[in-house]
Amino acid sequence: MPYVNIKITREGATPDQKAELISGVTRLLQNVLGKNPQTTVVVIDEVDTDNWGIGGETVTVRRKRGQ
Amino acid sequence: MPYVNIKITREGATPDQKAELISGVTRLLQNVLGKNPQTTVVVIDEVDTDNWGIGGETVTVRRKRGQ
Amino acid sequence: MPYVNIKITREGATPDQKAELISGVTRLLQNVLGKNPQTTVVVIDEVDTDNWGIGGETVTVRRKRGQ
Amino acid sequence: MPYVNIKITREGATPDQKAELISGVTRLLQNVLGKNPQTTVVVIDEVDTDNWGIGGETVTVRRKRGQ
Amino acid sequence: MPYVNIKITREGATPDQKAELISGVTRLLQNVLGKNPQTTVVVIDEVDTDNWGIGGETVTVRRKRGQ
Amino acid sequence: MPYVNIKITREGATPDQKAELISGVTRLLQNVLGKNPQTTVVVIDEVDTDNWGIGGETVTVRRKRGQ
Repeated sequence: MPYVNIKITREGATPDQKAELISGVTRLLQNVLGKNPQTTVVVIDEVDTDNWGIGGETVTVRRKRGQ
Repeated sequence: MPYVNIKITREGATPDQKAELISGVTRLLQNVLGKNPQTTVVVIDEVDTDNWGIGGETVTVRRKRGQ
Repeated sequence: MPYVNIKITREGATPDQKAELISGVTRLLQNVLGKNPQTTVVVIDEVDTDNWGIGGETVTVRRKRGQ
Repeated sequence: MPYVNIKITREGATPDQKAELISGVTRLLQNVLGKNPQTTVVVIDEVDTDNWGIGGETVTVRRKRGQ
Repeated sequence: MPYVNIKITREGATPDQKAELISGVTRLLQNVLGKNPQTTVVVIDEVDTDNWGIGGETVTVRRKRGQ
Repeated sequence: MPYVNIKITREGATPDQKAELISGVTRLLQNVLGKNPQTTVVVIDEVDTDNWGIGGETVTVRRKRGQ
C-alpha cells in the first residue's frame, strides 16, 4: 500500500531504466517493511532542467557549465 | 482552502471528465467538512503509463497483458 | 490505481469525516473515469494552521481575525 | 537541504522567470532559516489550465470568462 | 539530485528500517541512472491509518477486519 | 492561485519564521509572475530528522557527526 514518488530531471531515462526503478523500490519496501508489492504504487516524474533548481540555479545552467 | 492532488495515468481523460473531477471533489469537501469552494484548489497530474508502477511493474506492461 | 492526496488544515476533522472523504473521492473516480476502487489510494494530510498560508499569511493569523 | 515544490499554471513562464523563482526561494530559506543554498532543491511544476481547478471549475473556463 | 518521497502508514517502522529505505533507494538511483548519492534527497512520510484509504475505506477499518 | 510546498527538517522553526517563509514566497510569486497573493497557497511540512535522508543516510546520523 505504500506510495512512492520519484522525481528526476528529464535527461533521457529509458523505459527499461524506469521499470527497473519501479521494481527495485517495490522490492525494497517488501524486504525492509514487509509491504505487499501488489498494492505498492510508484510514480516517476521527469522534470525539465529549466524547472529544477539546486544551489539557487537551474540544472540547465549547471549542465552548461559541465556540472 | 484545501488542496487536492489527483494523479491518474495519461489514458485519454477528456477536459469534461477532468472538470467533473474538479467540481466533484470540491463539492465533497464542502459537504463533508464545510470547506469554502472558492479557495479549494485541485490539481490533476496525468502520468505516462511508463512512469506509473504497481505490483512492481509499469502500467505499460500491464496494459499489454490486458490488465 | 489513482492516487489522491487531500491536504486540509488540522482543525478537528473526525475519523468518520475522513472516511467519508476517502469513500467519496474513490467513488468519484470510479463514476467519472471508471477507475477500479480496489486500487485507488487516498492520503489525507492534516496541516497545522501555523504551517498553512494563504494570502501571504498563516491560517492561525486569519482565524484570530475571525476568518 | 530543504525541498520546495512550486506549482503554477502553464501560461508562459519564461526560463528567466523560473530561474528567478528558484534563486529567490533558495535565498529566502537561507535568510529566514539559515538553510544551506547548495543543497536546497526547488522543483517547478507547470500544470495545464484544464488540469487546475479553483472554485470548483477549471482555470480554462475561468480564463474564458476573463478571470 | 533526485527527490524521492515514500509514504507509508504509521505502523511502527523503526529508525533502522527507515535508514535502510533511505540508503536502499539512494543506491538504486545510483545503480540504475548514475545519480550522485550526495545530492539525492529522500523524505519518508508516515501517515495515520485513519488518514490512508484504499478500496474506498480507511486502513484502520481494514486492519480491524484483519487485512 | 499557485501552490507551494516547502519541506524542511523539524528542527525548531518558529511560528514567526514560518510566517516569514509564507509571506516571502507569496510576494516572490507576485513579483516574478504577477500571481494574485490572495489565492496563493503555501504549505510547510516539517519532517523528523529520522525521516529525511541525504547522501544515503538520515539527517539524524549526520547531525550526530556535527553536519
